[in-house]
Amino acid sequence: MKAAGIVVEYNPFHNGHLHHARSAKESSGADILIAVMSGQFLQRGEPAFADKWKRTEMALASGVDLVIELPYVYATAQASDFARGAITLLDAIGCESFCFGSEQGNIDPFLKSRQLLNSKNLLYQQEIHDAIQSGISYPKALNKAYQTVTDGEEGVADLSKPNNILGYHYIEAADRISSSMRPLTIQRIGANYHEPITEGMSIASATGIRNAFFEGGSIKELAKYLPAPSLQALQSFAGEYGHFGSWETFYPMLRYTILKDRPANLRRFAEVTEGIENLIYEAARKEQDFESFLALVKSKRFTRTRIQRMLTHIYTGFTWEQLKSFNQPSYLRLLGMTKAGRHYLHAQKKNITLPMISRAADLTDDLGKLDIHASSLYMLGMGAGNLKKEFTTPPIYFG
Amino acid sequence: MKAAGIVVEYNPFHNGHLHHARSAKESSGADILIAVMSGQFLQRGEPAFADKWKRTEMALASGVDLVIELPYVYATAQASDFARGAITLLDAIGCESFCFGSEQGNIDPFLKSRQLLNSKNLLYQQEIHDAIQSGISYPKALNKAYQTVTDGEEGVADLSKPNNILGYHYIEAADRISSSMRPLTIQRIGANYHEPITEGMSIASATGIRNAFFEGGSIKELAKYLPAPSLQALQSFAGEYGHFGSWETFYPMLRYTILKDRPANLRRFAEVTEGIENLIYEAARKEQDFESFLALVKSKRFTRTRIQRMLTHIYTGFTWEQLKSFNQPSYLRLLGMTKAGRHYLHAQKKNITLPMISRAADLTDDLGKLDIHASSLYMLGMGAGNLKKEFTTPPIYFG
Repeated sequence: MKAAGIVVEYNPFHNGHLHHARSAKESSGADILIAVMSGQFLQRGEPAFADKWKRTEMALASGVDLVIELPYVYATAQASDFARGAITLLDAIGCESFCFGSEQGNIDPFLKSRQLLNSKNLLYQQEIHDAIQSGISYPKALNKAYQTVTDGEEGVADLSKPNNILGYHYIEAADRISSSMRPLTIQRIGANYHEPITEGMSIASATGIRNAFFEGGSIKELAKYLPAPSLQALQSFAGEYGHFGSWETFYPMLRYTILKDRPANLRRFAEVTEGIENLIYEAARKEQDFESFLALVKSKRFTRTRIQRMLTHIYTGFTWEQLKSFNQPSYLRLLGMTKAGRHYLHAQKKNITLPMISRAADLTDDLGKLDIHASSLYMLGMGAGNLKKEFTTPPIYFG
Repeated sequence: MKAAGIVVEYNPFHNGHLHHARSAKESSGADILIAVMSGQFLQRGEPAFADKWKRTEMALASGVDLVIELPYVYATAQASDFARGAITLLDAIGCESFCFGSEQGNIDPFLKSRQLLNSKNLLYQQEIHDAIQSGISYPKALNKAYQTVTDGEEGVADLSKPNNILGYHYIEAADRISSSMRPLTIQRIGANYHEPITEGMSIASATGIRNAFFEGGSIKELAKYLPAPSLQALQSFAGEYGHFGSWETFYPMLRYTILKDRPANLRRFAEVTEGIENLIYEAARKEQDFESFLALVKSKRFTRTRIQRMLTHIYTGFTWEQLKSFNQPSYLRLLGMTKAGRHYLHAQKKNITLPMISRAADLTDDLGKLDIHASSLYMLGMGAGNLKKEFTTPPIYFG
C-alpha cells in the first residue's frame, strides 16, 4: 500500500485543494493520500477560519485519507521550520512520496536549486545576513541572496513566488533528514494567491474566499469555489460558533493581553524582536480594530505575516524559551481518517516511526501540551467556553 | 474652612451613603466633605459596578464636595493597606476630621482597642501568626487573636463586624502617620451588609443593590434605595456600556489570561500564594461562568474577598514585585468637585502636602501609571474600546 503525503492548511478547503489532492494521488500513483494539516493557528500567523475538526471533515470528504495535525510549534513557524515539521511527519508515517503545489510545476528546478545552495551554503548564508542587515524583510533577504548565488545558472527554481519558496523548503527538509520520500510537484492553477474573487471563476484562493466572506459575502455565494462537503462543514461551523475565526474576532483579547503584559513582558514571546514590543503596545493602546492596529505596527523590516506570527505567540503565550526548547515532532496526532486511511494505519503499523496519538489525553509531552493549550485559547478567542472538545472529539471517521 | 474626610467606594452611591455623608458633615461641623474613593477596582477584589466618573457624579450630586481617587495599589489592598492609603490622602489634603460608619457607632471603643493592641503588639502578632498557621483565613485569624488579647477588657470595639474592622484600621493608620485629624464614627443604619433587599426598605447595601440588579431587577425598581442623581447616573452608564461591571462580565478575559499564563506565571501576581495558582488554573479550564469557577477555588483558608483580590491582580497583571515597590501615595488625583470643593482647594493650596493631579497625563510616576493601566483594562473588560477617556475626562465639576 503506497501513500503520498501533502502539507496543507485547508483554510478552508476549496476547489484548488481538490485539484491538488487529486493530482497528488494521480501523479504519485499512491493508493492513499495523507495530509499533514495545521491545527488552530496557521503559518501566516492567524487563527484558523474554521477549527481543525471541521477542516478535517472537509479534507476527508474530498479525497484525503488521513489527516495528521502539524503541532503548533511548526504550524506557526517560519517556512523552513514549518517545512521541517511537516516533512518529518510525512516521513514518519511512511509516505512513499510527497507532493506540493508550485508556480514552477516541475520538480527538477527545485532539486537543482537545492544542490546549488547546498554547495554554496556559506556564501548564501553570508548574503542573507548582509541583506537583513540592510534593513529589508527576511523573505526579501532570502530572495536577494538567492538571486546572487544563482546568478547565471540555468534551470533553477524561481524563488520569488510564494509556493515555490515553500516547495524549496520541503525539498531542503527532506534532504536534511535524508528522507527516502520521492518529491513531486504539480502546477498551481487558477487564482493567484493574492487575487480577489472574480465572477465566473471556480477556483479562488483561500485568502480570497475568506476575504469575500468577511466583506459581507454569504457562505452560499462562495458555493462555486468550494466542494459541496466544504460548504456544508462551513455552514455547520458558523451555526455552532456564530462566526468564523479571524484576527478581528480575536482582537479584543489580543489587545487586552498586550496591554496587560506591557512591553517588558511582550519581549518574552517568540519572534518579538528589536524593540517592536513598544510599537505593538502603543498601537494596541490607540486602536480599536485589528487592521488599524496592524497598520501602525507594519514596517519595511517586517512582513505582515511575520508580525502576525508574533501576535499569535503573544496571544498564546508562546515564548522564545519554548521556541528554542523544541527540536523535532515527537508524535503523529490523528485528526481523522477514511476507511482506506484506517486500513493503511493497520497495515503499516510497524513502519510508522513516531507514536500515533488518537486522544488529546495522550499528548503528555511539552509539544503535545502546547497543542492543547493553543487549541483552548483558540476556543476562547472564538467565544466558545467549552474547552472539553479537544478531549471529547475522537478522530473523525469518514466511512 | 474646615473639611471632613470619608473613605468610600460608592458602588453604587445609595441612600445609606447619603445618610453617611450628611451625618459626617453634621457630626464633624465641617464646611465641606472630601471623599477618597476607589477607582475602577474595589477592595472586595471586583471591577466597579459603574466606572469612577459616574460614581464621582453620584457623589457630587449628593453632598460630597471633593472626590479624590484612591490609587489601585491601595484600593485593592487588604484592610490595613487600604486604610493607610486612604487616611494618608485625607491627611494630605488637610482634613480636620475623618468619619467612618461602623456597627459600633461610638469612637471610644476604637481608641481603647488601638491603645490596647499597641501596648500588646508582640503578643497580638504572635497570636495572629499562630491562628493563620492553624489554617484559618486571615480575617478570622485577626479576630481570634483580638479576642485573646482583649480578653477581660471592657469597652473595646467589637472587631467581628466588618465595618468596625475597617474603622479600626483607619484609627490605626491615622495613629501611625501621627495625623492630627479628629476621628469620628457614626452608627450604620438599615440593611446589614449581607442582607438581600426586602420590600419597603429604603436603605439597602450596595452589595444587595448590585445583586438585585444582576438577578434581573431593572434600575427603576431600585429607585427607592438610591438618590435620584444616582439613578440617573446609573441609567446613563447602562446606556453607554450596555451593562454594569461584574466578574461575570470580565470572566471571559480573566479566564483567557489565566489559561494563557498557566500556573508558573500566575504565581508572579500579587496575593497569589501557596499553590493556589494550580487550583485557579484548573478551575478556569473547567468552568464557563465566574460563580462556578470561584466555587472550585474557594476554601477555608481563603475568603472570597481574598481570592477576588488575587483575581483582580491576575487580571491587571499586578505583581508581587510591584506590590512591594510601593510605599505610600504620591499624589492626589482629583476626580471631581463642587463649587465649594473648588473654593476649598484654592483656599487651602498651601496646606495640601501632596501634588494635586487633575489630568491623567500628569500621572507620571509608577503609582500613577498603574492607575491608568488598571483603568484601561477595566474599560476593555467592559467591552469599551476607546481608552482615551482616562485622558480626555477632566475633573467633573458640579456647580
